[in-house]
Amino acid sequence: MLYLYVDSDREIWQESLQLKLPLDVVAWPHSVDAEQVEYVAAWNPPDGFFAPFTHLKGIFALGAGLDRFHKRDDIAPGTPLIRLTDAGMAQQMLEYVLHGILHFQRDFDRYLQQQEQNIWQSWPYRSARELRVSVLGLGELGGHVAQVLAQLGYQVQGWSRTPKHLEGITTCHGMAALPNLLQHTDVLVSILPSTPETRGLLNADTLILLPRGAVVINAGRGDLIELRALIDQLDSGHLRGAQLDVFPQEPLTAENPIWQHPKLIITPHVAAATLVEEATSQIASKLAQWQQGQAVAGLVTKAAM
Amino acid sequence: MLYLYVDSDREIWQESLQLKLPLDVVAWPHSVDAEQVEYVAAWNPPDGFFAPFTHLKGIFALGAGLDRFHKRDDIAPGTPLIRLTDAGMAQQMLEYVLHGILHFQRDFDRYLQQQEQNIWQSWPYRSARELRVSVLGLGELGGHVAQVLAQLGYQVQGWSRTPKHLEGITTCHGMAALPNLLQHTDVLVSILPSTPETRGLLNADTLILLPRGAVVINAGRGDLIELRALIDQLDSGHLRGAQLDVFPQEPLTAENPIWQHPKLIITPHVAAATLVEEATSQIASKLAQWQQGQAVAGLVTKAAM
Repeated sequence: MLYLYVDSDREIWQESLQLKLPLDVVAWPHSVDAEQVEYVAAWNPPDGFFAPFTHLKGIFALGAGLDRFHKRDDIAPGTPLIRLTDAGMAQQMLEYVLHGILHFQRDFDRYLQQQEQNIWQSWPYRSARELRVSVLGLGELGGHVAQVLAQLGYQVQGWSRTPKHLEGITTCHGMAALPNLLQHTDVLVSILPSTPETRGLLNADTLILLPRGAVVINAGRGDLIELRALIDQLDSGHLRGAQLDVFPQEPLTAENPIWQHPKLIITPHVAAATLVEEATSQIASKLAQWQQGQAVAGLVTKAAM
Repeated sequence: MLYLYVDSDREIWQESLQLKLPLDVVAWPHSVDAEQVEYVAAWNPPDGFFAPFTHLKGIFALGAGLDRFHKRDDIAPGTPLIRLTDAGMAQQMLEYVLHGILHFQRDFDRYLQQQEQNIWQSWPYRSARELRVSVLGLGELGGHVAQVLAQLGYQVQGWSRTPKHLEGITTCHGMAALPNLLQHTDVLVSILPSTPETRGLLNADTLILLPRGAVVINAGRGDLIELRALIDQLDSGHLRGAQLDVFPQEPLTAENPIWQHPKLIITPHVAAATLVEEATSQIASKLAQWQQGQAVAGLVTKAAM
C-alpha cells in the first residue's frame, strides 16, 4: 500500500496515483493499518507522521528537494528517499525567476510607483547583456534556469557548493568563490537547497558585498536568507528590491510586517509546484524500475541525523 | 549636413553620430541654413519641422515604424525614408511582452493584491504550453517575439495583415481570420504599426471575442485600441488585465483617470527604445551603402497623402 500525504487537491492526487500504480493508494487523513504501508508519497507532512510506518520500503518526496526529509527524526536512517526528477518544475522556476529579473531590469518597480502618482517618466534601458545574473544552486532547477537565461542574452554566472560544468555558463564553486561573485552581481537568484552549509548564507556580511542597486530573488528555501539583514539593506537603499517566494516560517502570518515592505514582492511558495500528472507518472515509473531492480534516478538513503 | 532631432540625450546622439559619419552633424534646436541640410535623423519631430529643408536627400527614422512619417504633410512625397533594421529593439520588445505574459500567467496581479492585504493564498499553476498567446504584427519585432515565446514553450499564434511564414509558429492573416483567432486567445499581444487598417482594430466588437479572463498587451501603437472599450471590458470583468505602453495621446496627462485603473499596468512608451550606439552605427553603414549606390535595407519613399 502507498499512503499519500498532500495538503491540497487530495482527491486529484489519489485518483491519478491509483490509476497508474499496481498497489492500493490511500490518502491521509484516512486511517490505515500502519504495518501495511510500504510506500509513502508526501509533501511536507507534520512531525511524527512517519513514526508508525515500521515496514516502510521507501518515500517519494513530492517537491524538488530532500532536505526536509533528511532533517526529520521520524524517518529511520537508511530509508530510501526518492526525489522526483523534474515534474515540470524547471520550467516553472525559470518563469518565476524571469519575472523577477524583468520586473527590475525593465523598471516595472519604478513604473508601478510612478503610476500610483500619475507620473509619465521613462528610465534608461539596461540591456540583458549588461545585466549580471548570478544563479546560486546549479541542480536540475538552477542549471536549467541559468542556461535559458544565458540563451536569452543575460550575462549569467553560476555558483554551486561543489564544481559543476554547464554549457554556456561561467561557473564557480565553494564558499571562497562567493564574495567575488557577489561583488559582480546585479541580480542574485537563489535556488539552493537548505543544508547546514547554505542556511543563513545570505546575511549581513554577504549581502553588503552586492553592488548598490542589486536585487535578490529567493526561490530556494526560506532559511537561506537572514530576512532581517535583507530588509536592513533594502531600507538603507543599498539593495533595490527583492522577489521572495520562501520564508523561514510558512505561511507568513497576517501580522508579519514584511507583507507591507514597499521593496518586496511576496509570493506564497508557488515558484515551482509539483504538477500532479507529471509527478504521478514519475512515481509509477520509478516504482516499476525499483521493483525490477533497475537504477532509479533521484534515489538516496536517509542520512543519519 | 545631417540635422538631428531627438527629445532626450541629445549630446550623446550627436557625439556618437559625428564620430561615425563623414558629414557635419548639427542637433536641433541649434539653427542651421536649411538649404545645407541633406539628411535628417529624427524621432517624432513637431509638425512643420521638415518644411524648411528643401534639399533633403533622405530621412532616417529613429524608431521601428515609418507610419508617423508617412502621415506627415511637411515631407514631400517621394522623399526617401530609411527605417533602422533593428537597433536592439526586438530583444527589448521580447522582454517587455514576456514581463506582461509572466505577470498574469504566474498570477503576480493576484499576489500583489493579496500582499496589500497580508493574504497568503496560492493559485493553481497554468503552464506555458496551455497558454494561448496571439501576436498581432509579425514584422521584425513581432516575428522575433513570437518565435522566442514559442521556444519558451508558449502556445503561440501569429497574425498579420498579409501572409507571413515563421518557423515554429502557426500564422494566419487578414481581417477575416481575426475573429476566430481572438476567440482562442488567452494573451493578446499587439505589436502592429498604425495604419488605416489597424487603427481602432481592438474595439468593443473585437475585444468581446476574447475569452473571459484574457489579457491584453499593447506595445504597438496607441491608436490600435479603443481605450474606452478596453476599460469597459476590464470593468465588466470580461478581461482580466492589460499592460499598455502606448496611448492615443502621449504623454498621458496627470489628470487622466486611467492611471489609477487597478487592472492596468501603464508604462511610458518604453517597450522598445532605440539604442544610441546601435542606431548610429546603422545610420553610418546605411548612409555609406546609399552613397555607394548599394541597396539599403529599410528604405522606402514617402507615400503621397
